[in-house]
Amino acid sequence: MSTTLQDHIEEVIGLIAAPPDAYLAQARAHMDTLTKPLGSLGHLENLAAQWFAIRRGSVTGPVKKSVYVFAADHGITAEGVSAYPAQVTQQMVLNFLSGGAAINVLAQLNQVEVNIVDVGVDADLAGHAGLAQYKVRRGSRNMLREPAMSEEELDAALSVGLTLADSAFAKGNNLIAVGEMGIGNTTAASVLTAALTGIPAGLVTGKGTGLDSAAYEHKCRIVEAIVSRHFAQPTGPLEILRCAGGLEIAAMTGMVLGAARRQIAIVMDGFISTAAAAIACGLAPAARSYLFAGHRSQEPGHRVLLAHLDIPPILDLDMRLGEGTGAVLAMPILEAAMRLYREMATFASAGVSGATA
Amino acid sequence: MSTTLQDHIEEVIGLIAAPPDAYLAQARAHMDTLTKPLGSLGHLENLAAQWFAIRRGSVTGPVKKSVYVFAADHGITAEGVSAYPAQVTQQMVLNFLSGGAAINVLAQLNQVEVNIVDVGVDADLAGHAGLAQYKVRRGSRNMLREPAMSEEELDAALSVGLTLADSAFAKGNNLIAVGEMGIGNTTAASVLTAALTGIPAGLVTGKGTGLDSAAYEHKCRIVEAIVSRHFAQPTGPLEILRCAGGLEIAAMTGMVLGAARRQIAIVMDGFISTAAAAIACGLAPAARSYLFAGHRSQEPGHRVLLAHLDIPPILDLDMRLGEGTGAVLAMPILEAAMRLYREMATFASAGVSGATA
Repeated sequence: MSTTLQDHIEEVIGLIAAPPDAYLAQARAHMDTLTKPLGSLGHLENLAAQWFAIRRGSVTGPVKKSVYVFAADHGITAEGVSAYPAQVTQQMVLNFLSGGAAINVLAQLNQVEVNIVDVGVDADLAGHAGLAQYKVRRGSRNMLREPAMSEEELDAALSVGLTLADSAFAKGNNLIAVGEMGIGNTTAASVLTAALTGIPAGLVTGKGTGLDSAAYEHKCRIVEAIVSRHFAQPTGPLEILRCAGGLEIAAMTGMVLGAARRQIAIVMDGFISTAAAAIACGLAPAARSYLFAGHRSQEPGHRVLLAHLDIPPILDLDMRLGEGTGAVLAMPILEAAMRLYREMATFASAGVSGATA
Repeated sequence: MSTTLQDHIEEVIGLIAAPPDAYLAQARAHMDTLTKPLGSLGHLENLAAQWFAIRRGSVTGPVKKSVYVFAADHGITAEGVSAYPAQVTQQMVLNFLSGGAAINVLAQLNQVEVNIVDVGVDADLAGHAGLAQYKVRRGSRNMLREPAMSEEELDAALSVGLTLADSAFAKGNNLIAVGEMGIGNTTAASVLTAALTGIPAGLVTGKGTGLDSAAYEHKCRIVEAIVSRHFAQPTGPLEILRCAGGLEIAAMTGMVLGAARRQIAIVMDGFISTAAAAIACGLAPAARSYLFAGHRSQEPGHRVLLAHLDIPPILDLDMRLGEGTGAVLAMPILEAAMRLYREMATFASAGVSGATA
C-alpha cells in the first residue's frame, strides 16, 4: 500500500472517536423515568440511547436527513454474474434523477434529501442536472483477472465519500443514509464478506437481483475463484477493498469514515452498504458507534455482516432492492425513538404510579 | 348465549366479505412492471397488494389514519397478576388525555388522530374533555371466580366497538389502529389465547409489564386455573370472550368486526389487541383480510396468535407497551408500501431494461 493512501486514511481514522459510555447510561436513566413499563420500548430504547450518545446529549434540534446513493459499474459483470444487463446501472441513475425510483418515493415521503453520486458509471453522464459528478473510472476492473482498483483509484473513490461527508456536515445533516446502484455489486459484497469474515463463498453469496439456480451456482464459483485469487493470505481491510470493492463501495466506506469523524449518525442500507461499513469498521472500530442498520435484506451475506458488526437491524422485511431504500424506510422508526425519548411525560410529571415489585 | 347477543353479532358477521382474490393478482401484476428487481420489495409488496384489495383497487385518495385506545380495568388484578397497581389504568388515561404518553408522541409524529375510549375504567372520569365515554362497568369481573362479563355486558362492550367503527367510517378513516390500556389485561389475553389455540397456559403467558420470576410463576398458575375453570369443554369464540375477555378486549373485537364490515384496513397492535382480533376472526374468518399486524411483541402468546392468524408482523422491535404504539409505529411502513405502489416509474416509462434471464 502506498504511503500517500495509507497516510490519507490514517489521518481520518485518528479523528474518529466513539462517544463516551456515560451518555448511554444517562439516556437509560432518563428512559426509566418515562410513563411506560421499564424497558417496554424494546429496541427503540437502544436506538434512542445511541442517538443521544452520538449527539453527545444534545437532542433538541431538528433531524436533518439525507441519503447518498453512489452509483458505479463493475468489471466483474463480464463474467455473467447478474440477472440484469450492466446498462441498467446508468438507466437507473437517470430514473433516480427523474424521480421515478423507489428511493425517490421513500425519500419524499420521509422528507429526506436525495443525493445521486456518479463514482464510476460506465457512461458519459455529464450535463445531467442534479447528478453529483465524481467519476473515478468508467467501472471497476474485472476482479477475477486483476484487482478491482489501482491504489490511486481506491484513494480517489474513498476521497469522494470523505468529501461528501464533509459537505453533509457543512449542510447541517445529522442523519445520513448510504445506498448504492451498481449491476454486479452483490458479487463484490460477497467477496468482501468472505474476505473479512473467512466464511466460505457459498454461505455469503445470494441470488442478487434474481438469478435462477444455474446462474446462482455460476456466481458462487466466481466468488470462490476471486477469493482464492486475491485472499489466499490474510489481508488488511484496505487491500481487501482495493482488490474486491466496487468504486461505489469504496466511496461508501469513505462516507462512513468521514461521517463518523464528523459525529454524524449513519444508517446503512442492505448487503452492499453494510459491506462498505464493515470495511470502515475494520479500519476504524470506533466508527461502529455511529452506525444503525436500517434493515436486514434477503441476501445471506447481509445476515453474516450484521452479526459480524453486532448491529441488529431496525426492519426485517425481506427486501433486496438497494438504492438506500431499507435505510430511508427505517428513518421514521429511528425518529420515533428520538421523539419518544424527548417528548414523553415522566411518572412524576404525569402522576402515574410506578411498579409495586 | 342469549338470542339477542347472538343475533346482533350474526347480523354484522353476515355483512363481512373478503375482497375478491382478483385484486391481489392485479396488484402483483402491476408491481412486476415497476423499476425494481422482481419481488425485491419483499413484504412491502404483500402489504401493498393487501391494501389494494381492501380498497377494491381504489388507491388514489389520501390515507386517513386513526387510533382507538380502549381502556378498562380487570377484576383479575385482585389475584396479584400485575407488576403495577390497578390505578395505573386511570392514571394512564389521564396521561393520554394530556398528551404525555408514548401513543400521543407517535400519533402526532405520524399524523394519526387519537381516540381514547373508556369502556370500563374503575374510576369516575366524567367531564374529561376528549375522552369518549362508553363505560359498560367499572372493570370486568374476577374471571377466576366467575365469567368476566355477563351476556349483557359483553353485548354492550362489543357494541362500543361496532359503534366506533361506524363513526370511523363516517369520518372517512380508511386506516385504523386498535390499542388498549388495562392493568391485568395480558392475563386476559393469555387465557383467550390458550382457549382459542389449545396451547398450554405456560407457553402463552409472559411477564406483562415486568414481573419477577416468582410473580410470573404465580401468573401462570392463575392463567391455568382460569382455563381449567371455564374451558374444560370446547367453547365458541363468543363464550370464550365473555368468560375471559376484558371490556376493552370485547370492544376491540367489536371494532375489528365493524371495521371489516365497512372495508376499513385495521392495524393490530400487540398481544391484547391481537387476541381481540383473533376472537373476531373466530367469529368471522373473512375479517382476517382486513388485518395488518403492526409488530410482534415480547409476549410469547403474541407470537402464538400471529401464527394462529397467519399474519406476519411488520415490525419486530421487542416492544411490549400496548396503547396502540406498535400499530401506529408501523403505519409509516404501510404508507410507504402504498406510495411505492402508486408512484414508482415502470420499466417502460423509465426506459430501464428488464432481466436478461
